[in-house]
Formats: sequence, C-alpha cells, structure tokens
Amino acid sequence: MGNIKIAIYGYGNLGRGVECASKQNADITLTGIYTRRNPKDIKTVFGTPVYSVSEIKEHKSEIDVLVICGGSATDLPKMTPELANDFCVIDSFDTHAKIPEHFNAVDTSAKKGGNLSLISCGWDPGLFSVNRLYASSVLPDGEDYTFWGRGVSQGHSDAIRRIDGVIDARQYTVPIEDAVERVKRGEMPKLSIGEKHLRECYVVAEENADKARIEKEIKEMPNYFADYTTTVTFISQEEMKKNHSSLPHGGMVIRTGKTGEKNGNTNTIEYKLTLDSNPEFTSSVIIAYCRALKRKFDRGERGCITVFDVSPSDLSPLDGAEIRAKYL
Amino acid sequence: MGNIKIAIYGYGNLGRGVECASKQNADITLTGIYTRRNPKDIKTVFGTPVYSVSEIKEHKSEIDVLVICGGSATDLPKMTPELANDFCVIDSFDTHAKIPEHFNAVDTSAKKGGNLSLISCGWDPGLFSVNRLYASSVLPDGEDYTFWGRGVSQGHSDAIRRIDGVIDARQYTVPIEDAVERVKRGEMPKLSIGEKHLRECYVVAEENADKARIEKEIKEMPNYFADYTTTVTFISQEEMKKNHSSLPHGGMVIRTGKTGEKNGNTNTIEYKLTLDSNPEFTSSVIIAYCRALKRKFDRGERGCITVFDVSPSDLSPLDGAEIRAKYL
Repeated sequence: MGNIKIAIYGYGNLGRGVECASKQNADITLTGIYTRRNPKDIKTVFGTPVYSVSEIKEHKSEIDVLVICGGSATDLPKMTPELANDFCVIDSFDTHAKIPEHFNAVDTSAKKGGNLSLISCGWDPGLFSVNRLYASSVLPDGEDYTFWGRGVSQGHSDAIRRIDGVIDARQYTVPIEDAVERVKRGEMPKLSIGEKHLRECYVVAEENADKARIEKEIKEMPNYFADYTTTVTFISQEEMKKNHSSLPHGGMVIRTGKTGEKNGNTNTIEYKLTLDSNPEFTSSVIIAYCRALKRKFDRGERGCITVFDVSPSDLSPLDGAEIRAKYL
Repeated sequence: MGNIKIAIYGYGNLGRGVECASKQNADITLTGIYTRRNPKDIKTVFGTPVYSVSEIKEHKSEIDVLVICGGSATDLPKMTPELANDFCVIDSFDTHAKIPEHFNAVDTSAKKGGNLSLISCGWDPGLFSVNRLYASSVLPDGEDYTFWGRGVSQGHSDAIRRIDGVIDARQYTVPIEDAVERVKRGEMPKLSIGEKHLRECYVVAEENADKARIEKEIKEMPNYFADYTTTVTFISQEEMKKNHSSLPHGGMVIRTGKTGEKNGNTNTIEYKLTLDSNPEFTSSVIIAYCRALKRKFDRGERGCITVFDVSPSDLSPLDGAEIRAKYL
C-alpha cells in the first residue's frame, strides 16, 4: 500500500488513465472512483471501488488528493473551485484564456478550506508549459514555438460530427515539416497558424450524403478549419474502427536563442513528445504531480499552484540523495 | 541596473560566457570578475572590472551570487566549499561519481556561513538531469538514455594532445544514429558505451611524426577510445583553425515508457539540445539559476541545493500571474 491516497472524480478516458497510472507507482494508492452516473453502471479497469459523487465528503479521510477528470468547457470551472474547499484537488483545465479566472476561483476556495490545489496539469498545459518556461528563462534572446501532433484533436473531431450527414469523424493535427525545420535551423520565422499545422480529416458519411457539401462545410468552418490546409478523406465505418480508434498525440516545444558577445551563436532547445495514448500520458503526469501536491500540503502550503511552482525533486518517489546519485 | 548582483570567480571560456549572458538579463548586474592571475592581464568582453581573488571578501556587499568558473578536477572541490562559507555560490561541478562528496562539503560550509549554494549547474549535469528526473517520474515503467553530441569533448581532445608528435587535436563525440532510432522506437535496447557513441578525431601532427603510430595510440587508449569506434583524420594547422575552432555541443535525453491496462502503449519523451557554443549555453543556464538562488536565499533557505530543488517559476524574471498568462 502506498502512502498517498488518491481518488478519481469522473470516469472517462482520463479517469481510466489515472486508474492505470496509479498502479505503476508504489507510493500511490487509489482508494475510489466517484461518478455522477449510477456506480453500478461503471466497469473499472482494475475493479477499483466506485461511489456516487454524493458520498464523497463521507470518505474525506480516504483522499489525500482528488483528481478531477472533467471537461474544461463546463465541468471544471464549476467542479474544481467547489471541491477545492474540501479536498486537495488536481485538474487538467486547458482553456488557456480562462486560466487566470479559474486560478483565482480555485485559489480562493482552497485557501478558505485550508487545502492546496494544482490546476492545468498534463502535457499542454503541463510539461510543455514547464519547458516553455525553462527555455525562455535560459535563452532570453530567443523565440519559442509549440507544434502539436501528429495527433487526434477531440474538439475538431466533434465539430465535424455535428455536420449534417456525418456519422463519425476523426481529425488529426499535423505539424508542417517545413515550418518545423525552419524553426530548428534558428530562422525564428513569423508563422501564421495555418503555416504551422495542417488538418487531416477522416469522415464516415451517411449512405446518400452529399460528400462535396460535407467537404466544403468542413474546409470553410471558421476558427476550426478555414485558416488551415485541410484534407478530407471519406472512409467506411469499418476503416474508422480499424485504423482510427486509438488516441495518439504529441508535439514539440522548440526555442532557439542567441548567445555570445555579438549574439552570434544560436542554441536550440527542443522538447518532443510522441504518445501512443494522450489520456494515459496525461494521467501519468497527473499522478507525479499528486505526489508533489501531497508533499507541499504537508509542508503547509495552501491555495492554488501550477506546474511552475513544483520543483522537480517533489515529483520523484526517491529522496534527495538518491535523486542526485541517479539523475544528476 | 538589475537587482541581483553577481560576480565571476575565474575567467576562462565559462567566465566569458557568464559575462555575456548577464547582459541579456535586465535583473542581473555583473559587479566584478575575480582572478588568480594579475587583473591587469585580463581583457574582458565588456570591460567588466577585474579584481584579484585576494580582494573578494572586501567586496562582499557587491555580490549576491558568486559564479565559480573553475575546473571540476582540481579547482571546484576546493574552491566551492571554501567560498560557500562567505558567499552564495553556484558552480558547474561535473565529476559525477564525486557529486555526493562535493554536495556534503558545500552543504556543511554554506550552513556554517549562513549561505545558500547550488552545485552542478549547466546542461549535463543541469538541464539534462532535470529532464531525466521529470521523465522518470512521469513514466516509471521505462528506460532512459542520454546521448551526447555531436560536440567537442575537451577531455578527449586533451588526451590526444598528450601523445608524442601531436601538435593539436579536436575530438568530436557523435551519437550513433541507429542506436538513437532504436531508442526512439521504444525498443528499450541494452546498449554498451561503444554502441551509443563514436569518436571522431582531427589531429595536427609534427612534420615527420609517425602517423600510423599516433593513430594506433589514439585508438588503443584505454577508457578514452579503446571501447569505441574511433576515426582519426590528420589535418593541417590551418584547417584546424578554420574548421574546428568553435565549441559546439549538444545531445539528447530520451525516455520511453509504457502505459495502459496491459502496459501496451509506448510514450516517448525527448529533450534535445543543439548548441553553437557549449560554454555560452552553460553560462545562460547558470544565470537563470543565479536568480533562483537569490530568491531562495531571501526566503531563508540555507545549505546546498541542486537544480532538482528549484521550481521552474524561480528561474523566470516574471511574476506568477505573468508566467501563467504567457507560458501555461
């Protein structure tokens, strides 16, 4: 039994990932999954006990850190501040423009309840953010670039599915290789969003649907596709299931910066993720930050923090001397 | 004028790099360079005042953080613990096996003097160490690999120069592409040192030297070359000066790890540096950690720390809200 007790609030892809990741860490014990659905309807990966969210406060002593696995659009802005009053919580809130507002709401609630919370955990926001900060602190005279993919964008896939005549869709965001190469060479190019990524769409249409109209609607959809080079490929439901059922993702954070007497030298820092499973990797990041959150809470920290406030040593199960011997 | 006053102790390639990097950071002010040589003999890049090391204690009020730019073999094991008693110091000690001993000596001295020190800063040890720790904390069921190069190894170049008949030499450490690809594919191979890197040597020999003998001596040199595929190319002094006078370096830290119900998914984290100037980049890292060291000292921390103990937010000149808005 590990010494950090965590629980999952909301059980979808991310919740399942957290359940799996908790098994890989000897100092983490998953004590329960809390759902808004009927607990009897939930089949977990490893038989973890499932409870109704209405029971959670009774189980407070079983939860050092509560991992909130909800959506950023409507779930988290409400759930995280509410739960932060009673628990040390961690979420993966990723609506960038609303982070300051979310941070303040969670900070207020956590301080009121005497808890510590960490928001926007995962890989972007998360490890990519950390790498943007390290790189910009080390190379102040430079530019950084984030490329996403090749990977499935859930939001864009959903947008296609809402088009009349579409049964199913999967959208891949793909970095444009030429742009990546220009950045790596240190050219520090100005790139529009459409010059950085292209969008590949795989669509299952209804039998008699007007495919030309669907393709046009996708390609002209404002914000989602209109500013990008977009390809649309119609496939069968079988093909969709066979070739597009996993959730790979990844991307790169690249910063190039100048150094030296006359800023004559170029140095490049590149951080790249290649993920078979986006939700499982996100969960793995969250589990490491659960450990840090518990330690910081035990040291008396209260309120809301982010990945920026966590020292690398607090993520590891090893102690200081072990870490120095093994990783320095 | 920035609000963190630093000084340089020892003025070689690294000291010059620190002098340049301090100019790129508005909150850092370099107040002096301290040398064991005659200060009159030192020509600095930007006209920074140069003093004898014997004067340094008189200038204590001008030094928030002292950057010790000495060698790991003989300078730092003595200098850092001595100076840590009177100053908050930072060094780039990189003799891996002796880090625990060095850490303890510096920790004792810093605590005695009421100071805070940070050892083994730069990129390896340094940013590479940080990335090994992040990656292993996030993906516990995995393996990590560090590749160095393509870059100049000073130690190996020096070893060649000591061979009879050699005027000058430059040794490049080069990652073996096939090994890198196997690692990236998630094969988690067991690799001997010679399977990870090869060694390219460029040598200027005396006019009548026995080149076959020199090549043999290089290739058979234990520890340095005997375990590696080594190439030796004889070149002219002019060619050496023209093509091999800069100090590029870099490398990669790659970790692949399994996730999911049956550990069936592979995820890869890759951190890559491509540096025109090894000493300038190392200096840039050190300057960011000077900022963190001052802040942590001001918060009351004492003793010895490493890059593992520094949260990313302490490396940035921006405040918490700015960092969250810009990088999260």
